[in-house]
Amino acid sequence: MEISRLEITNWLKQLQNNICVALENEDGLGKFTVDNWEREEGGGGITKILSNGNVIEKGGVLFSAVHGKAPEFLFTQNQHSVLKKIKNNNNLHFFATGVSIVIHPINPMVPIIHMNVRYFELFEENEGEVNIINKWFGGGIDLTPHYIVEEDAKFFHSELKNVCNNHHPSYYSKFKTWADDYFFIKHRNETRGIGGIFFDKLQDDDCLNFKQQFNFWKDVGLAFAPTYVELLKRNKNLSYTEKNKQWQLLRRGRYVEFNLIYDKGTQFGLQSNGRVESILMSLPKFASWEYNYTPEHNSLEEKTLKFLRKEINWV
Amino acid sequence: MEISRLEITNWLKQLQNNICVALENEDGLGKFTVDNWEREEGGGGITKILSNGNVIEKGGVLFSAVHGKAPEFLFTQNQHSVLKKIKNNNNLHFFATGVSIVIHPINPMVPIIHMNVRYFELFEENEGEVNIINKWFGGGIDLTPHYIVEEDAKFFHSELKNVCNNHHPSYYSKFKTWADDYFFIKHRNETRGIGGIFFDKLQDDDCLNFKQQFNFWKDVGLAFAPTYVELLKRNKNLSYTEKNKQWQLLRRGRYVEFNLIYDKGTQFGLQSNGRVESILMSLPKFASWEYNYTPEHNSLEEKTLKFLRKEINWV
Repeated sequence: MEISRLEITNWLKQLQNNICVALENEDGLGKFTVDNWEREEGGGGITKILSNGNVIEKGGVLFSAVHGKAPEFLFTQNQHSVLKKIKNNNNLHFFATGVSIVIHPINPMVPIIHMNVRYFELFEENEGEVNIINKWFGGGIDLTPHYIVEEDAKFFHSELKNVCNNHHPSYYSKFKTWADDYFFIKHRNETRGIGGIFFDKLQDDDCLNFKQQFNFWKDVGLAFAPTYVELLKRNKNLSYTEKNKQWQLLRRGRYVEFNLIYDKGTQFGLQSNGRVESILMSLPKFASWEYNYTPEHNSLEEKTLKFLRKEINWV
Repeated sequence: MEISRLEITNWLKQLQNNICVALENEDGLGKFTVDNWEREEGGGGITKILSNGNVIEKGGVLFSAVHGKAPEFLFTQNQHSVLKKIKNNNNLHFFATGVSIVIHPINPMVPIIHMNVRYFELFEENEGEVNIINKWFGGGIDLTPHYIVEEDAKFFHSELKNVCNNHHPSYYSKFKTWADDYFFIKHRNETRGIGGIFFDKLQDDDCLNFKQQFNFWKDVGLAFAPTYVELLKRNKNLSYTEKNKQWQLLRRGRYVEFNLIYDKGTQFGLQSNGRVESILMSLPKFASWEYNYTPEHNSLEEKTLKFLRKEINWV
């Protein structure tokens, strides 16, 4: 049986709810506010934001399902061969749905986390008749510790490896490398954090068929809550100093640089006239930049910087 | 007589020195640190940074003079017709020099200011012989008050208008409109601040000849110090509240958004392998983002937001 848009969006909304409940439980104080919004050109979303909790300073768990005429920039920026062929098709529409999460904790010993699962359709519409040209899943989870703890990094990557291995033996290695390449701050020559997994445009012609891809993709979404809750439990009660907090703000500055310069979701959102407050919920409450900041020799900050590179095998 | 690169760079270095002295005098505490740096592909610069002064929290006054093979992105992003024609020329080099300034004050009642004056050459080099294909001046000054005070805005624009009027009657109107369009945060549908003047690729074929353009351009650079010092004098001793400070951090968040997403100087710098710490000195020490922040009705913050639009005639 075909997997319908409705089945996918319903599943995503349920995922959003479940994740918010899990995060509220672990935070113990903060509650998500809910904003329902509509997009002028078609579709809308549900933006859930938690501010000033016990553990979470600023976090967003967003659902959206938008559609409309396929925007021009898809054809100039997107390398997908099908898109190029159909560049001059005036009846070309897109449908995009997903859940996106960024959590900025108060305690600098707790890592920032990001997760996104998305589904994209490109279709022609002629006199009410819909002809799907292409459809695919994409997603990813990555972790940005302000201080990299090897044990936590190993745990995080093991969880993602387990999810991948349950579906295809090549996936973890492939998608871990993809994350290393994607979550990379080119102008700093450093990774955003310890990476995770990243994938895009999963289709029948990959290792799994569409239904199997869907199952893999769902398991990625389901892995988020237990994995991050475990990292919160491990670290949320650790003590920290003013110096740790200052370092956290500088690392958040780098997070802002990545999101505003490189993140494709942010670019797609801003260019397709998305809801700015939802797209930029990924930015932290406070961030800092200091000219030429260099950590002390042999400090934990210096150790963390040394880990911010590609091709580290955490598992 | 020809205006040489040496004459231009010497003038810029002198400008940098004079501005730093004027800012240190008005600050009363902070001193500029000096970093001399070299660029692997050719050229270098002098980065002067003032941190944690009495009045200035973080400010940079930068000189650079870089050269090298004309990078590929010049041809894809730059609309200049000459560049397009000579796209396939392997001997094409560029020379770029300028002074760039961004000042972030501590007191939210004092505006952020930005200034840039730059000179660009595109030339062929064959067996040591240099053939200049094109050369031009560019620049701009714009003001970003956290709280817009109409009297100060009028003063600021009057000073710029005077500079322009001394050289050509059409300049202020033309370059003021250009600044409105350039210093615009598209995804927020708001201007960065109250604008100022902006111009690029001034050449013989404009209203003035090259020598006259040079004189105009120098006067723009010279206007910076007295104009900003006057604004510092007017506002640096005003009292402010915690709420004013919070608003300042949010406005600085917008400043970060503009600089990382839209600013062409930042893009040119990062893409041409410029010195990252110098390019990103424009980012504030602290910035903040709050989800869906809306100022109180009839507040000074709301009043400021209403002024953040194009086509306001301040003079």
